[in-house]
Amino acid sequence: MMKKIDHIGIAVRDLEASNKLFASLLNTDCYKIEDLPTQKVLTSFFKTDTQKIELVAATDPTSPISSFLDKRGEGIHHIAFEVEDIHLEIMRLKTEGFIPLSEKPTVGADNKLVVFFHPKSTNGVLIELCQEIK
Amino acid sequence: MMKKIDHIGIAVRDLEASNKLFASLLNTDCYKIEDLPTQKVLTSFFKTDTQKIELVAATDPTSPISSFLDKRGEGIHHIAFEVEDIHLEIMRLKTEGFIPLSEKPTVGADNKLVVFFHPKSTNGVLIELCQEIK
Repeated sequence: MMKKIDHIGIAVRDLEASNKLFASLLNTDCYKIEDLPTQKVLTSFFKTDTQKIELVAATDPTSPISSFLDKRGEGIHHIAFEVEDIHLEIMRLKTEGFIPLSEKPTVGADNKLVVFFHPKSTNGVLIELCQEIK
Repeated sequence: MMKKIDHIGIAVRDLEASNKLFASLLNTDCYKIEDLPTQKVLTSFFKTDTQKIELVAATDPTSPISSFLDKRGEGIHHIAFEVEDIHLEIMRLKTEGFIPLSEKPTVGADNKLVVFFHPKSTNGVLIELCQEIK
C-alpha cells in the first residue's frame, strides 16, 4: 500500500549549486550523488527524519527533466511512495483508473524498481511508486 | 531543525472531486476538512505513514491558491517541515539568505503556526515551516 512517502523529487538546473542551496536550507549535507544514465539524470539525496529529498538534474536535452524544466521551471517534480509489491500496486491503481507511464517498472535511482503515473490522471501530481531491489 | 516533513500540499480546483481521487490513489479516506478563511482556502487531509497530504482549494479568486492555479494549474504546491521553534528557524533561514513571505508566522491549518519562504530563494520550491500550537 502507498503508506510511506519515500522521497520528494525536485527538478533543478544546476545540481552543484542546488546541493549547496539545499544544504543550507535543510541544514544537512547531501549524502549521495548518483548518475542514472538510463533516465539521463544526475541525482543527489538529502535525509530528513524518515524521508529523503532527491534533487534531479538533466544530463541530456532529451531527458524528461529537461522538458519539465522548459515547461515549468525548477521546482517540485514528484512524490515517491514506497510500496511492498510494486506490481500489485500498479494493478490496483490501473483498476482505479490511474495511468502508468510504462507498463513495467524500471530500475531507478537508489537501488529501486520504479514506475511513474501520468499526472493527468492524478490532479497534476507526478506520482512515483518505488520498491527496494533486494 | 527542519528534520521532519509534516505534509505535502497539493493545489486543486475542486476539493470534493480531488478528495475522491486521492482516496482511490492513496487507498485511504480524507480524515479532516478544514476551512481557513484567513488564507481563503479549504483544505483536506490524508494520512500517510508519518506524513500528511494536504489538498488545498481556493475559496475566493484573491486566494494565493487561485493565482497558483492560474499560473501553474493543479499540482504540488508546497512542502511543509515541522520545526520546534519557528522563530529560531526563520532567523536561521534569513541568515542563510532565504526570504520569508511574512515577517511573522501566522495561524495556518491543522492548529499550527506557519510561515512560507519565497520560492525564488529556494529553487522554485515553496517551503512552509510549521510549529504546533500548544
